Amino acid sequence: MTSYLGDKDEVLRRLRRIEGQIRGLQRMVENDSYCIAVLTQVAAATRALQAFALHLMDAHLAHCVASAVEHGGPQAEDKLREVREAMARLVRS
Amino acid sequence: MTSYLGDKDEVLRRLRRIEGQIRGLQRMVENDSYCIAVLTQVAAATRALQAFALHLMDAHLAHCVASAVEHGGPQAEDKLREVREAMARLVRS
Amino acid sequence: MTSYLGDKDEVLRRLRRIEGQIRGLQRMVENDSYCIAVLTQVAAATRALQAFALHLMDAHLAHCVASAVEHGGPQAEDKLREVREAMARLVRS
Amino acid sequence: MTSYLGDKDEVLRRLRRIEGQIRGLQRMVENDSYCIAVLTQVAAATRALQAFALHLMDAHLAHCVASAVEHGGPQAEDKLREVREAMARLVRS
Repeated sequence: MTSYLGDKDEVLRRLRRIEGQIRGLQRMVENDSYCIAVLTQVAAATRALQAFALHLMDAHLAHCVASAVEHGGPQAEDKLREVREAMARLVRS
Repeated sequence: MTSYLGDKDEVLRRLRRIEGQIRGLQRMVENDSYCIAVLTQVAAATRALQAFALHLMDAHLAHCVASAVEHGGPQAEDKLREVREAMARLVRS
Repeated sequence: MTSYLGDKDEVLRRLRRIEGQIRGLQRMVENDSYCIAVLTQVAAATRALQAFALHLMDAHLAHCVASAVEHGGPQAEDKLREVREAMARLVRS
Repeated sequence: MTSYLGDKDEVLRRLRRIEGQIRGLQRMVENDSYCIAVLTQVAAATRALQAFALHLMDAHLAHCVASAVEHGGPQAEDKLREVREAMARLVRS
């Protein structure tokens, strides 16, 4: 049921890298860094989070959704509906 | 030169809250949470980062930019150009 | 092969509504409307375009992708890869 | 009060180009183009609208906002508040 299992180390590595970016932002603020410099790093962290979301969605489509659709029936439709809703949240965030 | 100085505690609190969201994502992955549940929390963290960026941009416009424009001259134009570029990075991220 | 066929009238209606929003923007500019008022309508048109994209992606997942995945094989993988790439373009746009 | 006056022809040209993109989308749908091809053009039109918004915001910052801030007082604050709100709508759209 969890699409990223074969890939879990890489998924955790990416999240730790993003955590590092957020801690870097805290250090910048503690050192009174210039607002625009902070904003540049915020934009970089936002892009990293979006790339992470797309990576996870990839795994989810390739494993969970593909296998549910192969089996067909109401579960397949549920999976596709979930993907649409998750996609809408990503596009709007 | 740093617009968020009077507001530094609140700025740091927001960043620590976002760091907490990223660590929460790591726990979800360690516990093999369902991809769609992880993606929902990624969208929430992305929105929190964007709200943080807008908060910082507010402070920057109200302090740095306003004071530079009052003094006029090339520095005012530099500040406005910086703001435009930072805004473009935010809109595109 | 075209997922929105049963839905084509509604798809065209949505696009004509968005075209109307863009022409409305031209009238605002011709009448020297205030920049912020124009920007508010640009944001509304952007949201309408994104909602349109999500609507189309829905139809595509529910028809093309579902049927390709049911048949399996390399075509199913191609469809899923296409969806991922289209999703990445939407999230980044 | 309208920052894009010196630039009105270029602003209208950009909007007509975007209108052309939306009509191109209608032709694609009328000709039953493949969903993914339509989605690629939707993403291009969305990016064009966002670039247009940033262009307008540029003009607004360089003219309206700069001149209001030079004069100072409550009107300057009103302008900065408007810009923040418009920026938030753009980032979230």
